[in-house]
Amino acid sequence: MSHFFQDMPVGLEIDLGVFTFTADHIKRYASHYDPQPFHLDETAAQNSHFGALCASGWQTASIWMRLFVLYSQKEASKLEAQNKPVAQMGPGLGVKNLRWLKPVYAGDTLHYFTTILAKRPSESRPGWGLITARNWAVNQNDVLVFECETTALLERRAG
Amino acid sequence: MSHFFQDMPVGLEIDLGVFTFTADHIKRYASHYDPQPFHLDETAAQNSHFGALCASGWQTASIWMRLFVLYSQKEASKLEAQNKPVAQMGPGLGVKNLRWLKPVYAGDTLHYFTTILAKRPSESRPGWGLITARNWAVNQNDVLVFECETTALLERRAG
Repeated sequence: MSHFFQDMPVGLEIDLGVFTFTADHIKRYASHYDPQPFHLDETAAQNSHFGALCASGWQTASIWMRLFVLYSQKEASKLEAQNKPVAQMGPGLGVKNLRWLKPVYAGDTLHYFTTILAKRPSESRPGWGLITARNWAVNQNDVLVFECETTALLERRAG
Repeated sequence: MSHFFQDMPVGLEIDLGVFTFTADHIKRYASHYDPQPFHLDETAAQNSHFGALCASGWQTASIWMRLFVLYSQKEASKLEAQNKPVAQMGPGLGVKNLRWLKPVYAGDTLHYFTTILAKRPSESRPGWGLITARNWAVNQNDVLVFECETTALLERRAG
């Protein structure tokens, strides 16, 4: 997140931007990670319960990660330009309640968001805090298609 | 899973096989989905809290999906060879309690498993059942590195 633990208020909502799932993107991810016919081939997808080529749910989640990292890197650049220190992002510890609510079809554009639900200092790792966030995406029709809760470590500002 | 809902007993444990996370695999996934320095560059990773190049947690999860799909396709081939019907796998509905317990470093070989925790017929979708499974991976030192609970739809055998 680039800002220190102390500077990330509970309730903060972050717009992570948009990503369009092209047929090529969907097939490339699927060929490596989820080679089911309805993620690989338009005709097979038409004959499936989905009705059209759609993205692996794990790709929808992976793109959340991409946009979250790119957002954090942009924030880091802004802080560096102001000669301010940049907080380290620590490992993600886990995910709760990940849900794929609607299919993501080829051509869909998802808009991703994150909001901070809770925060607490880490008991086992001095210098770090735990941030719990709700993350979600809506499609171009403003329909919720993906959500999850993540907990990750974020560096604390000294003092 | 290829076998019908009725044929998948609670408690069944499935060996999904192994996957070695090469530096190239780790960097390729990270460049698309998790472009943090410790997933992209050996030197940057040495200087990070991880100490060495390691995989994105979302890649660890994505590889579970890959191995689960390949296992299901192998089972489908066996059923087809016996002229038996193959059950359709429906959409994954969600994931609970996904945890990344230890880093997955370049060169690590993970062994993935799935066990069926619970099952029930779908109330809203006749012809389908819900399978809840615990999925996990251990590394070459038999240390648990990843786990999650998934719920997905699986076709019911008629009658």
